Amino acid sequence: MMSNIKQLQLELGTRSYPIFIGSNLLSQIDLLPQYIASQQVIVITNTTIAPLYLEKLKKILASYSLECVILPDGEQYKTLNYVEKIWTDLLDAKFNRKATLITLGGGVIGDMGGFAAACYQRGIPFIQIPTTLLAQVDSSVGGKTGVNHVLGKNMIGAFYQPKAVLIDISVLKTLNDRQLSAGIAEVIKYGLIRDPEFFEWIEKNIERLLAKDEEALSFAIERSCLNKAEIVAEDEHESGIRAILNLGHTFGHAIETGMGYGVYLHGEAVAIGTCLAADLSRRLGYLNDETVLRIITLFQRAKLPTLSPEKLATDRYLELMSVDKKNIDDDIRVIILKKIGKANLPIKVTTALLKETLNGYRGV
Amino acid sequence: MMSNIKQLQLELGTRSYPIFIGSNLLSQIDLLPQYIASQQVIVITNTTIAPLYLEKLKKILASYSLECVILPDGEQYKTLNYVEKIWTDLLDAKFNRKATLITLGGGVIGDMGGFAAACYQRGIPFIQIPTTLLAQVDSSVGGKTGVNHVLGKNMIGAFYQPKAVLIDISVLKTLNDRQLSAGIAEVIKYGLIRDPEFFEWIEKNIERLLAKDEEALSFAIERSCLNKAEIVAEDEHESGIRAILNLGHTFGHAIETGMGYGVYLHGEAVAIGTCLAADLSRRLGYLNDETVLRIITLFQRAKLPTLSPEKLATDRYLELMSVDKKNIDDDIRVIILKKIGKANLPIKVTTALLKETLNGYRGV
Repeated sequence: MMSNIKQLQLELGTRSYPIFIGSNLLSQIDLLPQYIASQQVIVITNTTIAPLYLEKLKKILASYSLECVILPDGEQYKTLNYVEKIWTDLLDAKFNRKATLITLGGGVIGDMGGFAAACYQRGIPFIQIPTTLLAQVDSSVGGKTGVNHVLGKNMIGAFYQPKAVLIDISVLKTLNDRQLSAGIAEVIKYGLIRDPEFFEWIEKNIERLLAKDEEALSFAIERSCLNKAEIVAEDEHESGIRAILNLGHTFGHAIETGMGYGVYLHGEAVAIGTCLAADLSRRLGYLNDETVLRIITLFQRAKLPTLSPEKLATDRYLELMSVDKKNIDDDIRVIILKKIGKANLPIKVTTALLKETLNGYRGV
Repeated sequence: MMSNIKQLQLELGTRSYPIFIGSNLLSQIDLLPQYIASQQVIVITNTTIAPLYLEKLKKILASYSLECVILPDGEQYKTLNYVEKIWTDLLDAKFNRKATLITLGGGVIGDMGGFAAACYQRGIPFIQIPTTLLAQVDSSVGGKTGVNHVLGKNMIGAFYQPKAVLIDISVLKTLNDRQLSAGIAEVIKYGLIRDPEFFEWIEKNIERLLAKDEEALSFAIERSCLNKAEIVAEDEHESGIRAILNLGHTFGHAIETGMGYGVYLHGEAVAIGTCLAADLSRRLGYLNDETVLRIITLFQRAKLPTLSPEKLATDRYLELMSVDKKNIDDDIRVIILKKIGKANLPIKVTTALLKETLNGYRGV
């Protein structure tokens, strides 16, 4: 069972950490303990994942003083209130600064648990065990943690790196199709922003991914994590290049916040947002019609939405986009594609042009 | 007016920052702007300080797009709820990652504002303008930010460094005597933990400090900040030596939480806690009776309390101390004095010995 574990390293000096990718990692009793700092361990998971995998994890952690927090499942619960619940549980258990927090779940659990770890006693060690494709290829790696605010997605949070990321591909067996597609949205993103060969590979292998072919999933996860790790190593706190990871996210976050958290999965909103960003790139003269169509087609083949929600009016879009983290003063800034495999740092876009994309694209 | 500004530097590589100390800094129009990142500026202050100094600050910031948040004054308001209020105000104003947050107030405002800055959009620049002696000599320097939890003092927070600290000694003119004494508690602390000459200077000059002699205050603030800056530069995240800054704080935090936040000022609780730590050091054989008396006498001369609150039972003390950040697993760890001017890293102390100090000292 130990035979086929791949290990990547996110290089961040003293805060470097390994990303393990393999099958049945949740049955590896010797992998986790080396990243645990003391007897005190708390696991954060949700009501969907707990019945499936919590017992497995508990078996590995049998020798520790263990607390478990089981939160409701969904983006709408990614709030400060639930993070406060984690803090209260930590204090009730008298856990101190050497306690280790383990997240077992998708992006919501990873983001919330990571933020709870970042701020409990000003920071305790934590370990990510992502259980959705989206979390495995994107959110569990790189140290972005946080919660949503009613006025904006991921507006409250911290850059806080885990001690290790354990990606057990076997858990994807229980992932539903909608969640699988949502994860593929972020996989496609890596191809678009900096890895044209990978984009072509996804075009050729999309059906294998949708069929949960383990070899294809393993390759896609590893290649995605490699891309992510390289970018984060270069620019941990997003003062430059890391921003390209947010391709489509400025639109996507507006969709998530505007439609109500949980209505669209994050990956679904990103799929739509990336199509909008591609359309905007076309209007700016970077992409031709054929390339935009090629991008949209791949998202459609991945069974992802590509059209803006009818209910989200253009003015509301613009209002929501005006609080994006990449903006400077009053300007809205968006990541643009120069070609497939090459994204541009956020650039200021005029409201007039944004309106053209938002109105025009809705009609496709 | 520019004549007498002293500048210390906290050396933290790319996150190094200056500490300015001088009179009438709040009238220096050219000092602040170099640390402000964009047009968006938000000032966090309280109902006591706003009527005294907010207009002065607004005058310096006249050319910016300015928001002000005025919070109630007191340790009992150092809660996540008020930090959430700051975040909501930032989002309502559509402030982005380049916005600059300025704290104008004592330790509570600095800690809360710093934490709000640390987590808003995963971190925006902030500047500390401390207005109490305690904040000027201690809490504004070193990047410890956070809020209290009903179950423990400063339990939620972040290490997050400001871009600059502006210490305007002139504002101490309006500080009341109780707050002045509370600040002196932390000044005495620096002497005790690593600066025996400074301790002797305080013994000789305590009346000048209590009389707000500007020269004496200036010296005490500078020497305190120098000690703090040296320790923080060596150990930013308190993995070692920085813990000695918490001399007396394990007891002190128990007093603040146990008696209800705001009943004792932080500096008052630290004064009592330091006397308890001195007594414990005596019981461990490090200090003799005479030295303990010398320490207690200085706190008394500074008009600070030195006896445990009668209402706080020994068992409650122990319960509250069991969630201290310096603990490892179930052990309570306390900073001990080896002599005046030399503190020891936190050591495990038996419950029996702690009880002796807590019961015994109460009787003095």
